[in-house]
Amino acid sequence: MTVEQDRLRADIEANATFGAVETEAGHGRTVYAGTEANRRARDRLVERMEDADLDVVVDPVGTILGVWTPPTADPDAAPVVAGSHLDSVPQGGIFDGPLGVYAALEAVRSLQAREVAVERPIGVVSFTEEEGARFGGGMLGSAVATGQRRVEDALALEDDEGVTLADALDGIGYRGETAIDASEWDAFLELHVEQDTRLEAADVPAGIVTTITGIAQADARFDGEANHAGATPMDARRDALAAASEFVLAVEEAGRTEADAGDNTAVATVGSAAVAPNGTNVVPGAVDLGVDVRDVERGSMERIFARLDDALDSIADERLVDTSFERVLDVDPAPMSDRCRDALESGAEAAGVETMAMHSGAAHDAMRVSRVTDAGMLFAPSRDGLSHNPREWTDWADCAAATRVLERAIGVLGSAE
Amino acid sequence: MTVEQDRLRADIEANATFGAVETEAGHGRTVYAGTEANRRARDRLVERMEDADLDVVVDPVGTILGVWTPPTADPDAAPVVAGSHLDSVPQGGIFDGPLGVYAALEAVRSLQAREVAVERPIGVVSFTEEEGARFGGGMLGSAVATGQRRVEDALALEDDEGVTLADALDGIGYRGETAIDASEWDAFLELHVEQDTRLEAADVPAGIVTTITGIAQADARFDGEANHAGATPMDARRDALAAASEFVLAVEEAGRTEADAGDNTAVATVGSAAVAPNGTNVVPGAVDLGVDVRDVERGSMERIFARLDDALDSIADERLVDTSFERVLDVDPAPMSDRCRDALESGAEAAGVETMAMHSGAAHDAMRVSRVTDAGMLFAPSRDGLSHNPREWTDWADCAAATRVLERAIGVLGSAE
Repeated sequence: MTVEQDRLRADIEANATFGAVETEAGHGRTVYAGTEANRRARDRLVERMEDADLDVVVDPVGTILGVWTPPTADPDAAPVVAGSHLDSVPQGGIFDGPLGVYAALEAVRSLQAREVAVERPIGVVSFTEEEGARFGGGMLGSAVATGQRRVEDALALEDDEGVTLADALDGIGYRGETAIDASEWDAFLELHVEQDTRLEAADVPAGIVTTITGIAQADARFDGEANHAGATPMDARRDALAAASEFVLAVEEAGRTEADAGDNTAVATVGSAAVAPNGTNVVPGAVDLGVDVRDVERGSMERIFARLDDALDSIADERLVDTSFERVLDVDPAPMSDRCRDALESGAEAAGVETMAMHSGAAHDAMRVSRVTDAGMLFAPSRDGLSHNPREWTDWADCAAATRVLERAIGVLGSAE
Repeated sequence: MTVEQDRLRADIEANATFGAVETEAGHGRTVYAGTEANRRARDRLVERMEDADLDVVVDPVGTILGVWTPPTADPDAAPVVAGSHLDSVPQGGIFDGPLGVYAALEAVRSLQAREVAVERPIGVVSFTEEEGARFGGGMLGSAVATGQRRVEDALALEDDEGVTLADALDGIGYRGETAIDASEWDAFLELHVEQDTRLEAADVPAGIVTTITGIAQADARFDGEANHAGATPMDARRDALAAASEFVLAVEEAGRTEADAGDNTAVATVGSAAVAPNGTNVVPGAVDLGVDVRDVERGSMERIFARLDDALDSIADERLVDTSFERVLDVDPAPMSDRCRDALESGAEAAGVETMAMHSGAAHDAMRVSRVTDAGMLFAPSRDGLSHNPREWTDWADCAAATRVLERAIGVLGSAE
């Protein structure tokens, strides 16, 4: 086998020095799109791509694509592309994103070393701002590359200080001119850390994703009446926080019910709450909640929302509060293509790596790409299921095992037909 | 009758110009202790006191006491004092505090005009920072004047910008040198707006307070595990917000139970909540709640806390979250003295003003003073029960009626024995 664990590790460790955050808990990084740390990470990736004879282009929103055209390939054939992203959340981990980018590059180097007779060009991609931590986009680069977001709209996005993505990319020299169109790719594969404990619990080194769950997010608002906590009797209150608390429990219950009815893939979460006026001695007048609902089936997501609508109605009736509930994000579940899943399975077999099938509860660039071409995803184990955290960790041997699967799968896809 | 409604109104309206906040909803004011607006309000009060022949002193924390020694009085007798405070919450109302101060001054002027043969000196007091809006003290001036807080500790309190109370008072020229010792007062009366709807609902112009409720405040903390809202199955979560939501409902239930078992005087509130990390797509890892419990009996307050302890235990057991619950404030209920209540009742009879007995759910300076001498409180109606709000309102006729009751009660207390 020519996937070299040490080389892969050296690449990920070198990338981890950009925006490095050292904590007692572990090595993290903060790499927002368009920052100096991001520039250095990009510069190194481009350098490593060019070292491996990839032709590099940068698109107008900074997504980087390096393409290797094997001597055995038709240079005009649709490429097989693999990759992920280099940006991070605040104090994120060193694997979330970079593993997928550098594993793809390592896979290309290994295919080159093994002199596999690949018939298609092979691309390695790093999408801009997958995390959405600076410009709020979320899967921004893949949204543009798949035509789901217009370049101009993406470039006009502003960070908290009013800096546009356009200006940020200009500032680091990564506002490119070559459009990248993922619909022209033959197939796309993304290796990513699992961010859950299923692989760890099963002691299996790699997971093949069946479906990326749909995501619907909604803002729930409760308007009661702020009043003096001492002078307002219990029976004269319209307490927005008590109303919201009933709803938080209704969200949890709806998620549990649907998870139990299915394969434990449904989740429903209230992740954020804002209380006004938020003084210990004031009966809360208004509460905003951020609700997140996901499942692999649209029908299940809608059953959860129907339960939440009912819960809101009865809370509003009983407590005389005003409520509103608006979806601010609604993305269909994204099944991975059979062809890519098959390639990953045969790749795993060839590489001698055990795998298991699983859904992804998190969104990934592969979700965007799956709307325009065949896409597949591979998971590597996350220690304790942690991610978005300096304690995020994946053993180097597991990184290498998953990269071997990826390399073989790319080989299968690139040679088929 | 010589209480002059127009003169009282002119004083309150003039005071309302300092720190004035004009909103569509009404005339409010923002007057934090030690600010320029506070200096102007103090200057005018001192001027009005001196106009009425009061001798004015200022204590080391800025509390202002003006004393009138009637020609019929023993100048060495313990004085009868009335008053309240001039500071406000952010965007507070124009009556909360100033009504009690200027009504006391109007009462003195009326006693003077009527040439009542008062045997004790009569004092008018304005306590520093009753609201605690700048230095977080809360009933700070009355705490110092009653020996419940040391002068040095009070002066060392800092606002959000690190300015001490000492420096703020120096800056406006109100860091005085004359200690004020409320334990040397014969009695204390405070007129205040009710901040509830009981007088309005009963169509009664004045309330005589039986007891100021005890107040216990506690911080409840829930530590679960922050995790990815998509990748963490429902049955693998330790959701701190779901746990906290159960507790919010338990607090409400405990308050309702005790209110129903008694005279509807018990209240229990969760007024504030802080969620971490507070992202829609993250299972909450930690929640802090601010809990406020009040009643006229200590036993009832403790029964509420016992129920909350039980609720926390079962939530911790069931949800595998860590909890803590710490009291940060614990003040006994403060019954008003029979002597002061009797004086207010006979004063109301003499003034021809109907009254009703009621508890106070809010804390007041009279609560502090009641620990060291006889204290009584009188309430004027609050339109719609609103306070701490520019919409706070009390009809001028009601202000005058309550002031007449206050004047007569001061006369009764000052002439007795």
